[in-house]
Amino acid sequence: MGILDSARIKNSDLKQAIVVRTDLEMGKGKVAVQVAHASISAYLEAESADRDAAEKWIEEGMKKIALKVKDEKELFMYFQQAKDAGLPVSIIRDAGLTQIESGSATCFAIGPASSSEIDKIVGKLKLL
Amino acid sequence: MGILDSARIKNSDLKQAIVVRTDLEMGKGKVAVQVAHASISAYLEAESADRDAAEKWIEEGMKKIALKVKDEKELFMYFQQAKDAGLPVSIIRDAGLTQIESGSATCFAIGPASSSEIDKIVGKLKLL
Repeated sequence: MGILDSARIKNSDLKQAIVVRTDLEMGKGKVAVQVAHASISAYLEAESADRDAAEKWIEEGMKKIALKVKDEKELFMYFQQAKDAGLPVSIIRDAGLTQIESGSATCFAIGPASSSEIDKIVGKLKLL
Repeated sequence: MGILDSARIKNSDLKQAIVVRTDLEMGKGKVAVQVAHASISAYLEAESADRDAAEKWIEEGMKKIALKVKDEKELFMYFQQAKDAGLPVSIIRDAGLTQIESGSATCFAIGPASSSEIDKIVGKLKLL
């Protein structure tokens, strides 16, 4: 392993955060499916921007956390902040066939990206 | 659109099913993260086997369902059947840092693959 590799691994600490609305009162299965949509979509965004980092995150075990916000306004606020920070993001709108109104934004994912960059945006949110 | 394209689209009906243990009594956030792990892993398996089908599933909106089984024995039984049928599958074992015993299998995903092929294996399971 060269110096470059060591430095990259040391600095890598990649994760993905998925931020979910609690006011929609979605059931366990519904939330899981929405979070998985967001997770894959943001992963594909990240892969387009930086394939090496995205692959590294996969190899390292795809560290993920699910966080919560209380309503759509908060969801969009954090989404916009993450987008403005240049992080890979993806927001999910539900087709609305079950449980909730069609087109409702249910959650969004940030990353995989640097843990510290993600924490700057959503570090104070509570775990879902 | 040519005849080939029409035929492919007509036959495409792709989905992914994620099968989750309920006996671990995981919280909503924990389940969501485990399901997202399984979803991405099985997607990457599917992509290696048939890139066109995997991309088609993404373009069509990543249809997913979350299903439930009562324990690890059932989980492995359905996982093995899906594997034996040659479907892309991925099973998730938890690192066990929170909530449950380290190394526990929590869920697995099948597909994206043909809906009817998936239903042959897990079509009778209930939604999570």
